[in-house]
Amino acid sequence: MGQPGLVAVDWGTSSLRGALLDEAGKVLAEKSAPLGILNVPKGDFAGTFAAQFADWMAPGRLCLISGMAGSRQGWQEAPYAPCPAGLDELARRLHWIEPDRIALVPGLSVEQGGVPDVMRGEEVQIFGALALANVKDALFVLPGTHSKWATVSDGKVTGFRTFMTGEVYGLLTRHSILARTTEADAPLDEIKFLEGVRRAGDKGGLLHGAFGARALALFERLSPPQSASYLSGLLIGEELRAQTLGREVVLIGAPALTQRYALALKQAGITTRSFGAEATWAGLRALRAAMGDTA
Amino acid sequence: MGQPGLVAVDWGTSSLRGALLDEAGKVLAEKSAPLGILNVPKGDFAGTFAAQFADWMAPGRLCLISGMAGSRQGWQEAPYAPCPAGLDELARRLHWIEPDRIALVPGLSVEQGGVPDVMRGEEVQIFGALALANVKDALFVLPGTHSKWATVSDGKVTGFRTFMTGEVYGLLTRHSILARTTEADAPLDEIKFLEGVRRAGDKGGLLHGAFGARALALFERLSPPQSASYLSGLLIGEELRAQTLGREVVLIGAPALTQRYALALKQAGITTRSFGAEATWAGLRALRAAMGDTA
Repeated sequence: MGQPGLVAVDWGTSSLRGALLDEAGKVLAEKSAPLGILNVPKGDFAGTFAAQFADWMAPGRLCLISGMAGSRQGWQEAPYAPCPAGLDELARRLHWIEPDRIALVPGLSVEQGGVPDVMRGEEVQIFGALALANVKDALFVLPGTHSKWATVSDGKVTGFRTFMTGEVYGLLTRHSILARTTEADAPLDEIKFLEGVRRAGDKGGLLHGAFGARALALFERLSPPQSASYLSGLLIGEELRAQTLGREVVLIGAPALTQRYALALKQAGITTRSFGAEATWAGLRALRAAMGDTA
Repeated sequence: MGQPGLVAVDWGTSSLRGALLDEAGKVLAEKSAPLGILNVPKGDFAGTFAAQFADWMAPGRLCLISGMAGSRQGWQEAPYAPCPAGLDELARRLHWIEPDRIALVPGLSVEQGGVPDVMRGEEVQIFGALALANVKDALFVLPGTHSKWATVSDGKVTGFRTFMTGEVYGLLTRHSILARTTEADAPLDEIKFLEGVRRAGDKGGLLHGAFGARALALFERLSPPQSASYLSGLLIGEELRAQTLGREVVLIGAPALTQRYALALKQAGITTRSFGAEATWAGLRALRAAMGDTA
């Protein structure tokens, strides 16, 4: 590479992933290791970083790190940037580990109705998807253990909400009374999934609806694989109920998850487009570009 | 006793409790043992029953057993009585283990909006509270692992809903990310509890609201003991949202739980009265009376 390029790193709770990008944003190489912030040997973040990425850190080349590495339990704490925030705000609030060489990207915080919410890492994926889709306004959903729904207006995240969907799905299907009649890892049953999505609006709410899966199983009206899809639908339907939906939603995540949201949203008449892991690298590259001449 | 009286038994998942009642309904003696249906030695229900209650089973004396002993995993399966159901329906559908001597009380089932719901044992407590309060119409709540809200009209349970409140509270406070910042067994903080109840109506629903407890803790706006009360309030508030509330609610359960519902309902302008374990014995006695001369 004639130009210094970028070392883009996504350092999360359970894994450490990196990409070497050239000046045009092309991915030249990728690495990943099960060295999430909770599994860093002896808490030696600097040593772990060097062991993984020293060979990519050519003189003058910058490294930007997003994700939980910037949390209190991470390498160093990079205070949240408050919403509304775009790439400029992130660029101004980078937390430098080594000046002009290694920086942690701050997460975002927002205060809505007297309660705060936070994200770390998803903001970079959002800005990456905006760049890839070449748009400045969108409603995003990033499904997962803690799903995030975020509104972007004129290139800035103006608000977002976190939903404990994936975590509650795991708890209900593996550790509650529903575990007895649910095959948590069964493949998706689209019909039962969409039935669950629709039932999320029924009187009684989630705490009642989930017990419905138990009662349906007792009367042999829901098989263990169907129960998994039904519960998944109830939970994702609960997320949808909380949104002010427009015409389109942009999904970012693993296809097995984004597929479910696409199905649920299609049932509500909403179109979707999806991005995967590429959004992270695109977001860190867009952030590098936003830093302009100041870096 | 000049009259045969009644052996009243509540055989649940985790415990076996009994009372010897005289003909006037007075409790002459009580017993309890950690011999719930999942802990019956070798699955020998008859032997376990005899070991506990043979000395009370005088000739001509009846025993009525409510609770999970009548479930598929219990002594024998006593099929659910469909709602609407009152004492007469229960009396007609008793499942006799020994004719005119030992009977299992059926639970109740209901179908609402295409989804069934079930209870076993709570129906007896409801009829007991009706007898103790000398009323025929009321809205009941029986808090617990699986809270039940039931509507009684003219002495019959016309509908009810189960909420997985206690179980989800345990999962969230002990096994989710919230466990790190929540002291699950902390004493009740009434202010934070009522704040949680109010916030249950906020945009986003339960899956979002629960994550709010995490974000509030991150910013040190909610201490671990406060977090427990706040989450309890969010969950109980979610139950309240699902009800069509009138002027009064009748609570049946342990004081530590009914106290929370009384607080939450008082905030909503609803008066409450509470019954405890005595409702079970009163219910079985009322059922005995409803059997009339047919027994």
